[in-house]
Amino acid sequence: MTKQELINQIRTKSSFLCVGLDPDLNKIPKHLLEEEDPIFAFNKAIIDATSDYCVAYKPNTAFYECYGVKGWESLEKTINYIPKNCFIIADAKRGDIGNTSTYYAKTFFETLPCDAVTVAPYMGKDSVSPFLQFDGKWVVLLALTSNDGSQDFQVLQTGERQLFEEVLLKSSQWGSPENLMFVVGATRSSDIVKIRKLVPENFFLVPGVGAQGGSLEEVVKYGANRSCGLLVNSSRAIIYAGNGLDFAEKARLEAQKVQAEMAGFIEQENWDLG
Amino acid sequence: MTKQELINQIRTKSSFLCVGLDPDLNKIPKHLLEEEDPIFAFNKAIIDATSDYCVAYKPNTAFYECYGVKGWESLEKTINYIPKNCFIIADAKRGDIGNTSTYYAKTFFETLPCDAVTVAPYMGKDSVSPFLQFDGKWVVLLALTSNDGSQDFQVLQTGERQLFEEVLLKSSQWGSPENLMFVVGATRSSDIVKIRKLVPENFFLVPGVGAQGGSLEEVVKYGANRSCGLLVNSSRAIIYAGNGLDFAEKARLEAQKVQAEMAGFIEQENWDLG
Repeated sequence: MTKQELINQIRTKSSFLCVGLDPDLNKIPKHLLEEEDPIFAFNKAIIDATSDYCVAYKPNTAFYECYGVKGWESLEKTINYIPKNCFIIADAKRGDIGNTSTYYAKTFFETLPCDAVTVAPYMGKDSVSPFLQFDGKWVVLLALTSNDGSQDFQVLQTGERQLFEEVLLKSSQWGSPENLMFVVGATRSSDIVKIRKLVPENFFLVPGVGAQGGSLEEVVKYGANRSCGLLVNSSRAIIYAGNGLDFAEKARLEAQKVQAEMAGFIEQENWDLG
Repeated sequence: MTKQELINQIRTKSSFLCVGLDPDLNKIPKHLLEEEDPIFAFNKAIIDATSDYCVAYKPNTAFYECYGVKGWESLEKTINYIPKNCFIIADAKRGDIGNTSTYYAKTFFETLPCDAVTVAPYMGKDSVSPFLQFDGKWVVLLALTSNDGSQDFQVLQTGERQLFEEVLLKSSQWGSPENLMFVVGATRSSDIVKIRKLVPENFFLVPGVGAQGGSLEEVVKYGANRSCGLLVNSSRAIIYAGNGLDFAEKARLEAQKVQAEMAGFIEQENWDLG
């Protein structure tokens, strides 16, 4: 999916919501455990219920891999089930030396029809660039994450800049706003302001709104650019909104609530959405 | 496997060789493509041929994931086939926020019987610690890698130290030499010296000897500690030593050659191997 196609979806759905598909057999409704593939059954219902209100889905591979081969079957079925007008992010946080990263890229861009994959920057250019060689596909690079551990290395001062700023500036030369997004945690608005200045055109994938504590209003105020430039993720707050027979309906209502809030911002901010 | 058990294997086999299992359908012998599971058939033959000469195997998950569900089947079969006296490293370079890293840890330590998994440090303590909660299991943390991209962020000066030194020092407080190893690229001996001073007791997993250009002699001279403290990896040079019907025999000869060289160092250095 191209950047403009993604922006078109944001306009059409009045939403920049990404739904995180992090299924956990201990948390999904009990009645689904009788299904042949409980994880896919859960995801299918969640996708059916929420796809009118979000523009992206983000399955985190950890929640599938932990069930081995069966988990990868559920992942494949899930990704193939997501409607084609939705942007699909494999939240895999991969990254390895060049040749090996190419195989990871093939995994998510050829074997699976994902649009994007999250990548960790520690190994540098030749671990990131292979993912950028696929037409219409995206890297979502970790810049500043929303967890406590982000304070261990990401914020260290490296000369004039903090490490996450160095990651943003260097990697901006490896890709373009057409194929490179950044993970930007929503926990400190002063950081979001700083990041938006460094990379004015790139999309941000923002975790940490909702369960992890950020505010949508602040993210929009400090993180948006003139064509939105935001995908805001919510996982648990939506997919585990309920855990009875009506779990999908509860998820739909939660997604709809977030979408309505986003629609308000889209109207208010008057972004250029083509 | 405990640290002492690993050292016992090093003593018994007179080897600190790790064989990287990075199978590629374009590189394995053509006659194997007729097998029902060519990748497992290849790995099985390589393991049978080399297990007397190495103490560890390191399948890199990228080379399995790229074949989807079928690839994960090959990975599971391979890992289950590796003899129990060998240390198994899932070269997966994972790392995510706490809850999610726990699922990755379960993947490799419960669903699969690996001893260790490679982890990327960028997301900090709560992305690494969950892997350290499993008895007898190990984290192999990326510190200084051997690829060109290691120069992009890992060597940046952060105050008095370079980033990779900061990673070594901080993470040493999260684990111990009983459950934490480091990936240390063998490309610059001055760096290896520096790293060994910072973390005198931890094992190093050293890639980059052979195809990537490092010298075993230098690694031993600058990287060993008093009980060896080294696992030196070789992937392509061994597994692709031949690509005819006798590929496994060629791999055996290559592994044996490296083991003989290592045996020489073990005798010469007079390490305390219990």
